[in-house]
Amino acid sequence: MSKKDIILTGDRPTGSMHLGHLVGSMLNRVKLQETCEQYVMIADVQALTDNFEQPEKVHANVVEVICDYLAVGIDPQKTTIFLQSMIPAIPELTMYYMNLVTLARVQRNPTLKTEIKQKGFGQNIPVGFLVYPINQAADITAFKANLVPVGADQLPIIEQTNEVVRSFNRIYKTNVLVEAKGVVPKCARLSGIDGKAKMSKSLNNDISLKDSADELAKKVRNMYTDPNHLRVEDPGKIEGNIVFEYLDIFGSDKNKVAELKEQYQKGGLGDVKVKNYLVEQLDALLAPIRKKRAEFAKDPAQVLQIALDGTRVANEVTQATLAEVKAAMHLVY
Amino acid sequence: MSKKDIILTGDRPTGSMHLGHLVGSMLNRVKLQETCEQYVMIADVQALTDNFEQPEKVHANVVEVICDYLAVGIDPQKTTIFLQSMIPAIPELTMYYMNLVTLARVQRNPTLKTEIKQKGFGQNIPVGFLVYPINQAADITAFKANLVPVGADQLPIIEQTNEVVRSFNRIYKTNVLVEAKGVVPKCARLSGIDGKAKMSKSLNNDISLKDSADELAKKVRNMYTDPNHLRVEDPGKIEGNIVFEYLDIFGSDKNKVAELKEQYQKGGLGDVKVKNYLVEQLDALLAPIRKKRAEFAKDPAQVLQIALDGTRVANEVTQATLAEVKAAMHLVY
Repeated sequence: MSKKDIILTGDRPTGSMHLGHLVGSMLNRVKLQETCEQYVMIADVQALTDNFEQPEKVHANVVEVICDYLAVGIDPQKTTIFLQSMIPAIPELTMYYMNLVTLARVQRNPTLKTEIKQKGFGQNIPVGFLVYPINQAADITAFKANLVPVGADQLPIIEQTNEVVRSFNRIYKTNVLVEAKGVVPKCARLSGIDGKAKMSKSLNNDISLKDSADELAKKVRNMYTDPNHLRVEDPGKIEGNIVFEYLDIFGSDKNKVAELKEQYQKGGLGDVKVKNYLVEQLDALLAPIRKKRAEFAKDPAQVLQIALDGTRVANEVTQATLAEVKAAMHLVY
Repeated sequence: MSKKDIILTGDRPTGSMHLGHLVGSMLNRVKLQETCEQYVMIADVQALTDNFEQPEKVHANVVEVICDYLAVGIDPQKTTIFLQSMIPAIPELTMYYMNLVTLARVQRNPTLKTEIKQKGFGQNIPVGFLVYPINQAADITAFKANLVPVGADQLPIIEQTNEVVRSFNRIYKTNVLVEAKGVVPKCARLSGIDGKAKMSKSLNNDISLKDSADELAKKVRNMYTDPNHLRVEDPGKIEGNIVFEYLDIFGSDKNKVAELKEQYQKGGLGDVKVKNYLVEQLDALLAPIRKKRAEFAKDPAQVLQIALDGTRVANEVTQATLAEVKAAMHLVY
């Protein structure tokens, strides 16, 4: 990735961030900010598409999410953190792009199809939800981002974005819009502690970056392992055993992890011991984040100010793109 | 109508205005500006929803439409004329309203259904076209307009707007949005000179406000009358006879019109005579407009400046509404 790569990423402020976000995206951002121009969006408008009846929840989580960013090392000197609702260029671009996408095309989007099913909308899909892939095309292209970190299930959104880019550039005989590449992080999908699904606050199977050392220990103790491993001396299975899945990711000493696995499979290693080791490993990662987070959380006004400063920068960038887009569309008076 | 009535109206700049616009809406605006707070929108963004491949056409017609407004007596001291594409609050409001309307609801909108059929979109409806009733709800509510002059076929758009208003105010426990009343003008639908359909530039059956006296005379000569009225001495029909339809509307002397009708039905009155009289009557109305129009058209920069000044005013009003809307949605940081 060259110095000139532009990254647009972000989160819906619907809950504070957890371990899945940390390894799935946040640590990646900490690395990428050193070499790329990175924009991180607090997607409050998008959060409202399926939380429009709980605006208080969205509002309350904005500062929480920024605290999480700062605590993990996303550095406002290197990364522009901004609030989506304060970027008027995004809805403007969305309006123009909506003319270039048919209803049939949006309805064929596999990401959207899955989500519509998950959310049980049936025939009652809010238009705003249907439009969100087009809204995301506006997010991405407003910054001329060429790299967008996404989960594998979100790749169709990037495809939709690039279709808009190609249509726009073709129809308006321009090259102002830039195609983006979706980058799927190595560890995009961390299992929840129940082993049933991806870690998610709403499924209550997450380890939050806010959790105290005690809460962390308690959650690991309740973690899903091998349900047939009843006595210490019995052999245990490591496939599907969440404790070992986590150790593969978070264990700092790969040899030690390999040793534990062997012993567990042979028999003679109890769950409690392995879990205690995992707690140690996770706490080594999370304790400094937790500490920094608590510091930042003491001054929410200052934390918010960071996003407001970033928003000013984001408005400069996106207004410049919007001006080019409008010029291409002859909307200049 | 009380002094406090707020009117939002406007036109898509897809062609210069014609006699149908004049009696259907423009003369009404000239009257209403005396007693109401009136905003007239040049709907360039909406024009693009079905002209997105011809942005030059939309751009070129903006000044044309403003010239038409000024020529008929819409007074920028009394009426705020503004450009839709320069009002960022409208797309922002549209985004929020889209969450409150389901796809099924939009698809049931009779106005939209008819237009989708007329335009032959089939399954390929652009999302932007589908969203335009929600976009119009944003136009109307951004100004807190309580009166919206519309064609009878557009009343479902007002109903959609009011549904958005009620949903928003209920969900966000507020009363910032105001319901609007659709007002159908007496003469909302003038037939084209071919007698086949409503007057429309795209159907090439219009009398433009720009037409010279000669063009006017030529168009009236070609007007649809009674196809069976072949000889002067024969009795003619006035039902469906466009010349008489126009005389009912534009004839300044109702007794004279009644006389002509009687004579025509009895026989002994030729089409040429009646048409010459109609030309006289129309020219009395159109000549001063044509003259003023030609004056304004000499300085397009100044004409445009009028809309730019109005746009500044419109931005003040709509940003104030947007701020209230965002406050109700807890989107204040």
